[in-house]
Order: sequence, then structure tokens, then C-alpha cells
Amino acid sequence: METARLLISCPDRPGIVATVAGFLAERGANIVALDQHSTGGADGGEFFMRLEFDPQGGGFDEAAFGPIAERFAMDWHVAQPGHRKRVAVLVSRYDHCLVDLLWRWRRGELLGDIGLVLSNHPALRDEADRAGVEFACVPVSPETKPDAERQMLELLGDRFDLVVLARYMQILSATFLAQVGCPVINIHHSFLPSFAGAEPYRRAADRGVKLIGATAHYVTADLDDGPIIEQDVQRVHHGHDVEALTRIGEDVERTVLARAVQWHLDDRVLVHGPRTVVFS
Amino acid sequence: METARLLISCPDRPGIVATVAGFLAERGANIVALDQHSTGGADGGEFFMRLEFDPQGGGFDEAAFGPIAERFAMDWHVAQPGHRKRVAVLVSRYDHCLVDLLWRWRRGELLGDIGLVLSNHPALRDEADRAGVEFACVPVSPETKPDAERQMLELLGDRFDLVVLARYMQILSATFLAQVGCPVINIHHSFLPSFAGAEPYRRAADRGVKLIGATAHYVTADLDDGPIIEQDVQRVHHGHDVEALTRIGEDVERTVLARAVQWHLDDRVLVHGPRTVVFS
Amino acid sequence: METARLLISCPDRPGIVATVAGFLAERGANIVALDQHSTGGADGGEFFMRLEFDPQGGGFDEAAFGPIAERFAMDWHVAQPGHRKRVAVLVSRYDHCLVDLLWRWRRGELLGDIGLVLSNHPALRDEADRAGVEFACVPVSPETKPDAERQMLELLGDRFDLVVLARYMQILSATFLAQVGCPVINIHHSFLPSFAGAEPYRRAADRGVKLIGATAHYVTADLDDGPIIEQDVQRVHHGHDVEALTRIGEDVERTVLARAVQWHLDDRVLVHGPRTVVFS
Amino acid sequence: METARLLISCPDRPGIVATVAGFLAERGANIVALDQHSTGGADGGEFFMRLEFDPQGGGFDEAAFGPIAERFAMDWHVAQPGHRKRVAVLVSRYDHCLVDLLWRWRRGELLGDIGLVLSNHPALRDEADRAGVEFACVPVSPETKPDAERQMLELLGDRFDLVVLARYMQILSATFLAQVGCPVINIHHSFLPSFAGAEPYRRAADRGVKLIGATAHYVTADLDDGPIIEQDVQRVHHGHDVEALTRIGEDVERTVLARAVQWHLDDRVLVHGPRTVVFS
Repeated sequence: METARLLISCPDRPGIVATVAGFLAERGANIVALDQHSTGGADGGEFFMRLEFDPQGGGFDEAAFGPIAERFAMDWHVAQPGHRKRVAVLVSRYDHCLVDLLWRWRRGELLGDIGLVLSNHPALRDEADRAGVEFACVPVSPETKPDAERQMLELLGDRFDLVVLARYMQILSATFLAQVGCPVINIHHSFLPSFAGAEPYRRAADRGVKLIGATAHYVTADLDDGPIIEQDVQRVHHGHDVEALTRIGEDVERTVLARAVQWHLDDRVLVHGPRTVVFS
Repeated sequence: METARLLISCPDRPGIVATVAGFLAERGANIVALDQHSTGGADGGEFFMRLEFDPQGGGFDEAAFGPIAERFAMDWHVAQPGHRKRVAVLVSRYDHCLVDLLWRWRRGELLGDIGLVLSNHPALRDEADRAGVEFACVPVSPETKPDAERQMLELLGDRFDLVVLARYMQILSATFLAQVGCPVINIHHSFLPSFAGAEPYRRAADRGVKLIGATAHYVTADLDDGPIIEQDVQRVHHGHDVEALTRIGEDVERTVLARAVQWHLDDRVLVHGPRTVVFS
Repeated sequence: METARLLISCPDRPGIVATVAGFLAERGANIVALDQHSTGGADGGEFFMRLEFDPQGGGFDEAAFGPIAERFAMDWHVAQPGHRKRVAVLVSRYDHCLVDLLWRWRRGELLGDIGLVLSNHPALRDEADRAGVEFACVPVSPETKPDAERQMLELLGDRFDLVVLARYMQILSATFLAQVGCPVINIHHSFLPSFAGAEPYRRAADRGVKLIGATAHYVTADLDDGPIIEQDVQRVHHGHDVEALTRIGEDVERTVLARAVQWHLDDRVLVHGPRTVVFS
Repeated sequence: METARLLISCPDRPGIVATVAGFLAERGANIVALDQHSTGGADGGEFFMRLEFDPQGGGFDEAAFGPIAERFAMDWHVAQPGHRKRVAVLVSRYDHCLVDLLWRWRRGELLGDIGLVLSNHPALRDEADRAGVEFACVPVSPETKPDAERQMLELLGDRFDLVVLARYMQILSATFLAQVGCPVINIHHSFLPSFAGAEPYRRAADRGVKLIGATAHYVTADLDDGPIIEQDVQRVHHGHDVEALTRIGEDVERTVLARAVQWHLDDRVLVHGPRTVVFS
């Protein structure tokens, strides 16, 4: 059964669920999963909903839904049955996140397709080749950064619905982010907001923390400060030096990033200001 | 804001969400939270839904909802605004689960009220007294068990919506369970189905497991085999003997039982044959 | 069997284990548990060891061990068989950590004895009374703080081996810490270094983290910056507001604090500069 | 620095640590890590120790250690500096465990070398080829099993120190296990002893458990009953069908198996009857 997915955010008020569910029922669609969240509060709060449904032939009628969306001032997104998001992965030299994403894609765990691996180093070309994915290398230096980013934007074009930074070690400029035209997910190798910035494993070792973690978040112009999609941690102890923390942490990184990407591709994540609503 | 909670199970088919949400919208009720689950499958599957809503004066109109429930063959339950479930706790000599439940109740973490502590030993009378809860002691021996259970049923009467077995060390007969007239939640001190039956910590030590756990489940006539509400585990190692496993496990037990009781009191648990649907 | 516990830190070099184990073997002592950690490094690194042993009558001969300790420049501490550390607990109005510690003490989970509950509010007097523990109330205001701390130091005297801040909401001055004469353990209600300082749960909600945590650490003059003994986290989601985070977090707090206190009382924690070595 | 690793099990009695540490100290060896465990008990109990040390040229003198081992009736094993264990991996058609082990090996996370991938299906030949590892396919049917096992034993020869069953879907006979001549580690796709035997994910779904797990254990003639090395679990809920449990579980499987293999290769695991002592 091919299902469609509908994501809605809007100011909360009575009747939204009834109206949307009524719209679907009139067209014979059967709701398979419905998740809803309201923030409450004095002003009515914000309303968030994810619907997964079998639209029974012809797909979800976007034009007919327009007036409803307008009436409730909805911010909405629909993924029609069979739609798969197109993904570009940016990497540098660390392979663990890329290898994991490619492997999950090959075995059918991703509701999307990886169409490009873009790197500032040639190191991971073989991984892309083996998976049959286009690889492009755009070196970046402080002097060439604006040019490099222009070149990257050209390579990306409008071919992608999602860009994943799988340990891409360059900071993307606000200009790049404004022009990339799709959401960007990053994996940070610490349990944010702890150890934002550089060398989190070394700083975790210095501080003597007993758990290390990783954070997947949407990228905004403020470094390491975008809406968090997923985090996880692993227990460590005094016997683990920076190298051991790094090795343990890399396992957390690839798991956390995979979950965040899967949830995004499955239309389970809504951005709510500096935070996310995740219907996992 | 006082909310009502509506729980529904029925055969799945198109239009259920629209009908129920429409019913609420017509009466001006605002849906605060909606969780829905469908099992799918060839025959349409089963449909489960939890609605939390502000019924806007007068509460939820059960009589008006009757025909809808009938139309969809619903098994349904409503908790009107302000309703608190009444709880009886059965214990023996272990104090950890009782102490934790009483403490959570006192600090307002339970959407219900503990009205009776019933034990086959006098050991925990002081704990009940300190919390200002009625305590009754009904000793049980193999010979007196039928009499004891009759006495317990009389003490319980129809005063309670939930019975919690907080490490009650007697096995309740099928007769008792048939007559108690409300759900019964038990905490088993293992990660079921591992180590069902007696002495799970000793058997866990013998088997050399690396995690020990606890399981909260609804009690059925089949011992340790009722629908599981919640489970959790804690890491252990070769240095932990039976006594250490017991101490570590008791922390898991009280946490798992508290979650299961809270979710039940909050109308978040639906029974689905031998399993549960938990909207946590 | 009554065991003694010996904790040693010193510069690493060959022969330390052999010498200490030889000293014990000559006296017929049987080693029950031995944990050792070396930091390595160019200069030989630091050496840490915990020994638990049955000294076979007469206890551990501290005088005879002196020359060995001197030879290796050891920082060392011995807990003779049967020794129980004396503990004072400082609290304010939150009860969860105190209730948990008193309960664990009553049921024999602590290798020490709680002899004083000291608070800046009268709120938790009943909890101390019920456990049969001395309670003292020393209110603190910005103006009276120096006087209050003097009064607290007098109440503590030299009666205690450990002071536990079980959600004590006042900041202790460097003067107090210099004079208290024993280690001080604090529980901070966040996963440090995230959300050091005030209102961690509100700030966690604002940042939209997906896990919340607690940290038990030794108190130093730098607020929330002392050596971390233990940390743990619990998964949360967008549906949890500040109140829910607080309730979930309090369960983590009491668990993490209990572990840290147990490990300290069991002589399992060594301080290594800004970090700890924990032989758990 | 190249270290040696010494593993010892023997009946417990005073003086073992002193004797072994003294032996090393006399030869100028520096102990880097020492873990010790005693089971205690009326008869003195069992003693287990792992020593990691820098033998300072020439390696550990096994001949000189012989009399000590004999005096204490030691079961012992030494890994000389630089020694890497040789590993054969048996697989069928599931790729997740093999892919993960090969990837960890390539990036230097294993203290050993994978020298053979042996399968009853040709499906994973490409994975072995890409890693540059010998691949052999020995189909197995009920009729050909004795022959197939003989052929497998020939292929293995005495070339390997460890055999890893990375979701090998055939049951090895007692004859094979008696002749293979090295330890065999298996990954079972459940939290043993729950769901021993076939189809654990389907049975987990039927039982409605709230956590699923995996277990790595040494293989003995009793199926799924060998000494457990490592276990872990992942939270699941009513929305996860068998397919989802399988996908989530496979992530647990590969993580648990990798840890068990790493610990074995690092000489951190001692077998103690039906259990293990793991110095992780």
C-alpha cells in the first residue's frame, strides 16, 4: 500500500482535526497514522499534525485542500504516494557516517535516494563509486571559499530535497545556506549544547564527562545552534582517552544521523522556532 | 484547564477520526492531544485512539456519543474532566515499590488516589500510616487462601478502579481476578519472558546475563503472561552477585511500575489481545 | 567478612602493584578486589589503585605501610574494616534527593550513616524526624550569609566525612568550602557542561534538547565546575514542557546522586585534577 | 608502546597478585592495566585476573612463568606484544554483521585480522571481495551437513584463533564444535534467555515486549545456551511490526557482536562455567 504523508503547522483552534479528517474521509482516504501536538498556552498555542493515509487512487488533491489550508493559516507539506526525497551528502575525510548512510540506502532503509556525494577531499570517492553514486570534489581554502561554494551550489542545482552534512568539516556561509534551497541536516559530535564548536572529544576528555554524545540538527546561520532533531549518548569512563572517546562517539554519530535522516525523509519532523516536533 | 480523555478501540475503517473529531468540534471542544494507531492488515485491522480535549463546559456528552460508538462497534472509555482513579495497592514485605508510589502520590505525580494498602504481612503498616492511607492485613496460607481472597474482595468492594500488585508475593486465583472488577497491574522482577516464575534474580545470576530488568503487566489468569505495559533494564556485570542484582533490580522495578501506573491512570494504555498499545 | 579498602594515587612507575600486593600477602591479607588505572603518557603518567581486602585480624597496619607510601610518593587513604563514613545532607525545599538518600540509608544500601540534615528552610524537617536524624535550620539571606555559614560550620563541626548537597539552593562561599574539612558532593540538574548555572530545565526546554540529565560532582570554588563523579540522562520529546522535564529530571537526579554517594562511601572515587577515576 | 596481555583463572588464595606482579616487576615490566575479580564463597572462590603490561624487551617469559602457574593451578593465556588473533567469519545471507565487522577491521578497530568469510550461500561474496578477504561457499542441506562440516573444518584448518557466527543460519553440530579448535562466538537476535530458538523477532512482536535485544555468546553444544559475553536492547513500541523490529534489532545485533569480538580479541573475556567475566 502506497501512503501519502501530510504535515501541518498552524495556530491552534478548535476544529482543525475534524476539518482535515473530514476532507480525507469525503474522498475515501483511510488514515493509517495520525500524530498531533499542541503547545497550549494563553493565546491558543501552536498546532502540529502529521497524517499518513491511503488516498485511494489519484493521490492527495492539493488544489482542493488549498482553501482549508488558507482558512487555518496552515504551513503545510504533502508527500504524495511513492514520492522519494533526493539527497546529497557532503563529507570530508571521515567515512563512518557516509558508509552507514550508503549502506542503509542500499538495503532500503531510507525513503529517499542518495544522488550525490560532494566532498572537499578525494578520500571517500571509492565509497561513492562502490555505491554507484556520483562523486564530486570541490576543495575549499579560506581564499577560495566563495568560489567553492558557488561551484557546490551549481553541482547541487535544484536536484535535491535534502543536504546532509555527514562530518563535512567546513563551515557553510550564510550565503550558501540562503541559496541551497532545501533543508540541511548536520551531525555534531557532542551532546549539544555541551562542547559546541571545535574538538568536542578532546574537550569532553578534559572535562571528564561520564557520557559522550552526538546531535543531529538542522543547520542555521548560527553554528551548532539549529533546531535539534535527535541526540543520543554512550557511557564512557576514566579509562577512555580522546582516541577511545572518538571511536565510541563515531558509533553514536552514525546512529543519530541515520535516525534524523530517516525521520526527515519520512516527513516526521516539523520545525517549531528554535526547536523541532518529531513524530517518531 | 481540566481535560477529558477518550479511549477508543474498534475495527479500522475510513472516517473514524473525522466522525469523532467532528463530534467534538460541533460541541466546541478543543483537542489538546490525539494519538492514533492502526494495525493494518488484510481485513482492515484494528483502530486505537486516545483523545485528550477540553470539552468546554458540561463535560463529554456520553449519551450523545452512544450512537457513534455503536455505528463503529467501538470499545470505548471516557474520563471526564477532574476524574481521578481510585487505587488499591497490594504488598507483602518489600517496601521499595510501595514507598515510591506513595511518595509520587503525595507530590502530585499520580492522576489518581491511593485509598488502601492491603498486605498479607503487617510489615508495611507504618508506611501506609505515614501517608494517611488505610491499611489492612489479610494473612494468606495455602489452607486459608480461598477465605483470604474472599476477605480481600470484601475489603476492596467496588471502591477501586485499579489494583496494583507492588511486589505482592501471593498468586491470585482466577476466581479472585474474575471478581475483582477492575484492572490489576503487577510488577515482575525480570525482563519477561526471561525468568518468568520464581527467583528471577538468582536465575539471572546463574545464567550470567549482562542486563537485568523489570516488567509491569496487566494480570491475567496465566501467571506472568499478561499484556506488557512497560519494561526497562539496567546494565550489570560479573561482579554483581544475587544480592547486588536484587538491589539494582529494585530500582528498575519501582521505576517501571511507576510509569505503568501513571500511564494507566492517565488513560494512555489500551489492551490489544495479548499486547498493549501505549500512547506515552 | 569485613573488608578494608585502600585507595592510592601516585606517579606511575614499575613495581607499585608488586610492592603493595606483597605487603598485604606478607600479612596474610587476601585481596578481594583490585582495580587499577594508569594514565600513561611521556612522563610515565599517574597511577591509581583501589584494593579491597580481608586484612585477617588487626586491620591494615598503617604505620608499617608508611615507608612504602613515602617511597612511591603516594597520596593514600585507607578505610579499616567496619568503618562507616558519617554524612551530613544539606537541603532546601525539594524533597526527592533527601527522601531517596534516607530511604537507601534505612534499608542498608549506604556504607555510611546520615547524622544531620541541614537546611535553609524548615520544609523538610518531617522527613528528617521520621528517619530519626537530627535536623537543623539555618536560614540564609544575602546579608546574613557569612553568619549563616559560620553557624553551619559550627553545626557540622568535625563530625562528618562527607557533605552532600541534595538540591541545596544556596551557593557555598569559597571560605565555607575551605573550612568544611571534608569532600562535598553536589547534584546539578543538568548534563554538565550543558546548562551550568540557574534554571537548567527551562533552558533545556528552550533549546529543545532530546535528552535531559543530571550530574553529581565534587564541589570546588568554581560553581558547577568540579570533578564529575556520575551523570545520566533520560529521553524526552517535544511534548514535555518545563514541568514535565522537571519531574522526569528529578528521577534522574536522585538516581545519579545516590550512585555518586554510594561510590564515594565505598571508596571507589579518586580525584585526578579536574576529573575523577571511578572504580564502579 | 606494544603491550602484552595475561589472563589468569585459578582457585583464589592469598598471594596471587603479589606473586604475579612480583614476577613482572623483577623483569622490569610496567603494568598498564590490571583487572581482578574474585567470586568469594566458603571454599575461597575463584580468582580471575587480566594484566596488560609493557614487558620491556623480549616479551613475556612463558617458560619462567610456568612454575608459578603450576603452583597456583592456573588456567592462563598470554598474548605477546604485537600478536593479532586470526578470525574467520561465518555468514549466510544477512549482511549487517559482516559489513560492520569488515568495516571496523579496515579502520583498525579490531586487534586481529579477518582471514576468511565462509558462507552457505554465495550472497555475500562481493562484501568479502571488496575487503580483500578470502571467500568460500559451502552449501549445507540436511543430507549434506556432515560432509559440509568436514569441508568447512578443512577450510578453517588450524589457521584461526576465533570463529565468529555473524548470523550464520545453520546449527553447527557438536562434532564440528569439538573439532574446530578455537572459541566460537555467535550473535543471537534476542535478549537471551528470552526467545531462544527460531524467529525471535516474530515472537517478540507476538508477546508485545517493549524492548528488543541481542546477545553475543560463546557457542556450546547446547543451542543458545553458551556463556553470554554481551547484551544490549533498544526500546520499541506497539507501532513496530515484525519488519520494524527486525530493522531496529539488526542495529543492536551488529553493535553487540562488534563489542563481543573486540573484547575477545583484546583478551578481556574469561569463561567461568556457564558465565563470563568481562574486563571491559
